[in-house]
Amino acid sequence: MEISSLGEFGLIKHLTEKTTIKNSSTLKGIGDDAAVLSYKDKEALVTTDILLEGIHFDLTYVPLKHLGYKSAVVNFSDIYAMNGQPRQITVALGISKRFSVEDLEDFYAGLQLACEIYGVDLVGGDTSASLTGLCIGITCIGEASGDRIVYRNKAKNTDLIYVSGDLGAAYMGLQLLEREKAVFAGEKDFTPDFAGKEYLLERQLKPEARKDVVHILEENGILPTSMIDVSDGLSSELLHICTESGVGCRIYEERIPIDYQTALMAEQFNMNLTTAALNGGEDYELLFTVPLSLHEKMERIDAVKLIGNICDAAEGTNLIARDGTEIALVAQGWNSLERTNS
Amino acid sequence: MEISSLGEFGLIKHLTEKTTIKNSSTLKGIGDDAAVLSYKDKEALVTTDILLEGIHFDLTYVPLKHLGYKSAVVNFSDIYAMNGQPRQITVALGISKRFSVEDLEDFYAGLQLACEIYGVDLVGGDTSASLTGLCIGITCIGEASGDRIVYRNKAKNTDLIYVSGDLGAAYMGLQLLEREKAVFAGEKDFTPDFAGKEYLLERQLKPEARKDVVHILEENGILPTSMIDVSDGLSSELLHICTESGVGCRIYEERIPIDYQTALMAEQFNMNLTTAALNGGEDYELLFTVPLSLHEKMERIDAVKLIGNICDAAEGTNLIARDGTEIALVAQGWNSLERTNS
Repeated sequence: MEISSLGEFGLIKHLTEKTTIKNSSTLKGIGDDAAVLSYKDKEALVTTDILLEGIHFDLTYVPLKHLGYKSAVVNFSDIYAMNGQPRQITVALGISKRFSVEDLEDFYAGLQLACEIYGVDLVGGDTSASLTGLCIGITCIGEASGDRIVYRNKAKNTDLIYVSGDLGAAYMGLQLLEREKAVFAGEKDFTPDFAGKEYLLERQLKPEARKDVVHILEENGILPTSMIDVSDGLSSELLHICTESGVGCRIYEERIPIDYQTALMAEQFNMNLTTAALNGGEDYELLFTVPLSLHEKMERIDAVKLIGNICDAAEGTNLIARDGTEIALVAQGWNSLERTNS
Repeated sequence: MEISSLGEFGLIKHLTEKTTIKNSSTLKGIGDDAAVLSYKDKEALVTTDILLEGIHFDLTYVPLKHLGYKSAVVNFSDIYAMNGQPRQITVALGISKRFSVEDLEDFYAGLQLACEIYGVDLVGGDTSASLTGLCIGITCIGEASGDRIVYRNKAKNTDLIYVSGDLGAAYMGLQLLEREKAVFAGEKDFTPDFAGKEYLLERQLKPEARKDVVHILEENGILPTSMIDVSDGLSSELLHICTESGVGCRIYEERIPIDYQTALMAEQFNMNLTTAALNGGEDYELLFTVPLSLHEKMERIDAVKLIGNICDAAEGTNLIARDGTEIALVAQGWNSLERTNS
């Protein structure tokens, strides 16, 4: 079905008619000049992301449903990184002629699935034609109690550094998809065999945000001193925490959590595994610091791993390699601005 | 200066370093995973817009500073249309290689000027490369007391219909700019003579949101029963109010407020003036309804004009022409989806 047959208002109505409101903080969702929210008991958190075709995603191998899911989840991740809970999102879409109503239904199906799973309401949006490609702007609003909000700038000397899950898999998934795309170039049916590499693809195409980690930390009475989500790579995020907090850090190569499939793929691609884990990005894991005194409590939490400690700024921001040498961390994270300008 | 020389984080820092926080509801602005806002006394309003190069704006004749200003103001307008006050915005930008740091400084200068004038804080954003053109996503958060929020769906039979300012000028400004662009096609210096048409250009290039009208209504103890801002044209917006409220309407052609420059330009272009005023769009005026009993109070307010009344749904949604004939209103408003698909 052609989008023009519905018009802008018809399209939005069609795509959002199944939308239900789950949160008491959503007083009015889609359908007026603005959504109306109630944040009378807690602070409101707001984060925005823009995702552009050809920069952030390649529709050759990214199904639109997955894209909708991921677009929502990467924003939820920013709210969790403040130790908050995502509650509402708005979605602004620019769509070119080549997309059909069914394409947008797929995108919204992914978006709504993510909202369902994470307990978030879709409360507004804007849909416009674009001259080229798909352009997605998502804003997420979340809640947190003022005294529980975790910023980037409160890491202290001797704090321990933890990261959830494992790193580098999403980056390896991207490498894999890009290689297969090159191999299958021009062929109509893009159906390579990804057996044994499912985890890498899932991490790239359908990442999850660490709602569970935020919950576990609270259950165990742990309030991190600083926290950030790993979207641009561990190095880059850790340097953000250190710069903002005015401290240094020491992380240990041998402690960086890496999945077996990631390691295998790096070997096949003849890539440095640690570099992939440090700079790959799009992991959407939580990186945080806790006071040294909480070490024992932290030991009981399986979902996160101790990777190093905060030190004095004068000691620098270093990776301790397996052979004991110190290597200064560099923010080589995925930088879309550099990428298209170099 | 090339954008790549700063990188994403350097660029955001450079562009936002002059940002100051004006509102007590902004606890933390730019610089973390999310902004932190306090909306403990009032409801929060949220609205999102996407603006795309070649669809919503043409950089041949739109200066980037004006574009920044307008991008912010059109979002403020949505908040005023709920009878609220805009307090925060986030800005997501996709920028192609042809933009320099100075270009973005211009855009941000306009954005910050609008924030200054309307008392809004810039609290977050996302900047990415784009493959083609400029892509702008803006989300605005505002505040309103629950019992003062004005929706679209509460217009009642016999209510009076008012609109602020005048209509059709922004559309005529666009026609004028498009004509001059065609005349000057290929010439390097685009400097046509716009003497006597300044108002039309200003309405198109640097619109204002009607903060003053919201203030005047409150001062006079008037709470509209429904309200919307005129972005897609008077017909389209009035039909939204009628559909959502389950009522009909009657507006009078002779009462539609039109500026002298708009009328003159329509004559020069041999265009139907009423059609331009009804369907032109981008006026960012406020269209609202008030109970008949407030008629006398409303008479004292110069900023708005009575254009008709709400009637029973069975009576339809009509324009009464100067000769007394009834013409059914049609939503021919500016529809970016139809525009590029037809």
